[in-house]
Amino acid sequence: MEALVALVAADMNRVNQTILSRTGSDVAMIPEVANHLISSGGKRLRPMLVLATAGMCGYQGEGHVKLAAAVEFMHTATLLHDDVVDESDMRRGKQAARKLWGNEASVLVGDFLLGQAFRMMVEVGSLSCLDVLSVAATVIAEGEVMQLAAAKDTETTEDAYLAVIRGKTAELFAAAAEVGPTVALRPKAEIAACRAYGMNLGVAFQLIDDALDYGGSAAKLGKNVGDDFREGKITLPVVLSFRRGNEAERAFWKKALEQGEIAEGDLEKAQGLMTKHRALEDTIERARHYGAMARDAMGIFPDSPWKRALLDVVDFCISRAH
Amino acid sequence: MEALVALVAADMNRVNQTILSRTGSDVAMIPEVANHLISSGGKRLRPMLVLATAGMCGYQGEGHVKLAAAVEFMHTATLLHDDVVDESDMRRGKQAARKLWGNEASVLVGDFLLGQAFRMMVEVGSLSCLDVLSVAATVIAEGEVMQLAAAKDTETTEDAYLAVIRGKTAELFAAAAEVGPTVALRPKAEIAACRAYGMNLGVAFQLIDDALDYGGSAAKLGKNVGDDFREGKITLPVVLSFRRGNEAERAFWKKALEQGEIAEGDLEKAQGLMTKHRALEDTIERARHYGAMARDAMGIFPDSPWKRALLDVVDFCISRAH
Repeated sequence: MEALVALVAADMNRVNQTILSRTGSDVAMIPEVANHLISSGGKRLRPMLVLATAGMCGYQGEGHVKLAAAVEFMHTATLLHDDVVDESDMRRGKQAARKLWGNEASVLVGDFLLGQAFRMMVEVGSLSCLDVLSVAATVIAEGEVMQLAAAKDTETTEDAYLAVIRGKTAELFAAAAEVGPTVALRPKAEIAACRAYGMNLGVAFQLIDDALDYGGSAAKLGKNVGDDFREGKITLPVVLSFRRGNEAERAFWKKALEQGEIAEGDLEKAQGLMTKHRALEDTIERARHYGAMARDAMGIFPDSPWKRALLDVVDFCISRAH
Repeated sequence: MEALVALVAADMNRVNQTILSRTGSDVAMIPEVANHLISSGGKRLRPMLVLATAGMCGYQGEGHVKLAAAVEFMHTATLLHDDVVDESDMRRGKQAARKLWGNEASVLVGDFLLGQAFRMMVEVGSLSCLDVLSVAATVIAEGEVMQLAAAKDTETTEDAYLAVIRGKTAELFAAAAEVGPTVALRPKAEIAACRAYGMNLGVAFQLIDDALDYGGSAAKLGKNVGDDFREGKITLPVVLSFRRGNEAERAFWKKALEQGEIAEGDLEKAQGLMTKHRALEDTIERARHYGAMARDAMGIFPDSPWKRALLDVVDFCISRAH
């Protein structure tokens, strides 16, 4: 990631200033709640994708800064609403906003940030970028509802699961990467290439997250190993273990994830089944597949420091699993 | 209202078709939740304001239909999120969506509708309308957070209360009325006039709602008399009663609304105190004042059936209290 961080450093500084000034409000609770989450050390990967794809496409204007801030606000709004939906207690290693200020504040400050995101897009004045990001807002919500409907169904197929994460995670990566060439008025093929890069990167990113939840260290993720298990979330490691398991093992998954009956030692048992069926290795293998698609999508662009940095991001996302 | 309803009937038909098609999704839960609320017989006052102000301003295009649908979606999204924030059980005489599908679905379907609202605005392609409505989205959320922060504080001043309802209710009325002349590319003075009309109409509308909550019939409102009281909401009838009351009465309001200790007969006692201090009559009187401001704002427009219908709306909103 260092190459990317260095390339966008100056622009990112302006994005951070924009974020800070746009969370301002006379209603004190708004900057409090927003900054609790925004300043909690997210990687700002999504706004960096806007800046880097704009840079790679030779964009010379100023709009990318506000567009990057808008993408980060959309992401933050989603996290605030997700915490309410998932009833999460922790986020990025800190207490979730909903635990500190209540569900109400999380819902409403999320709405405020979404409104500000659209205001910034309007200020930039690119209807094509507004189109990309308003479609993304809809698709993300759709993905989340799909997840809700599929929740606690251990028979979810890998394809159904992919459809969920394409919506809830990968769409914003895709939109962020698409905004760069769009604001730079590049041809359709380049816009489609960046979008495909972002989409596949986003899928890979989420799959690695899913694997880490059963195997990584809490410090790395800012959440605890086993959160997904305790919340009954169906993720790819579970889908694979369930499908590769015997009757007794399937009964275990159903009891734990569908009925939520989790006894002492069940997380370790789940991890044991994943080892037995190579579910984590294969989840990471699947992530590598999407990572390769992300890299190949970029093939049409000539070599440049921007392009190399964007390709490095793919490796970074996948290497988190080691 | 009949004059307005008749004038916009043809356009409203298209708005309703747009609403129906835009709640469509492969994710079945989305149209279910959205239509539960949308088809529950709201008056569609806000989209009618878009259509009528566009009509009055001689708008000849097609954009007003999608803009009106977008305004209704913004309103519906707010209601869905409000129910979660207020923990309401009822909405428009039906069970609240959150009771039937859960808080999660209400939050996420609200987000979906907000996304669709922005998509429709982008399709219309007027950056000025996008500006008006994205600012409104932010201001509405700000007003709701302000209400949260002021919640259960019986010492709230009338001015502070007005600031809350300007944000949470009147801003969307103002934006809806502003969109008509904006999409019709009318001069600033006409845009400002329509905005002022909508803003003051919205304040009047909310004040009458507040009065009805202590005195109207449940059927009329689709909610029960006393909901605000039971939820500890500070509204103008309470602000006036508290400020005009003696020490013992103030202790009663604090106990009921701040501590939430409500005994049998307390609602009747609250109504009695409002009668004693003429709090409901004066709330309606205040609403008349804002209604008069709304009417006068329209003075710069020549007489027309559209203008007359818009003036009638003011009377309709206020006469609900009788």
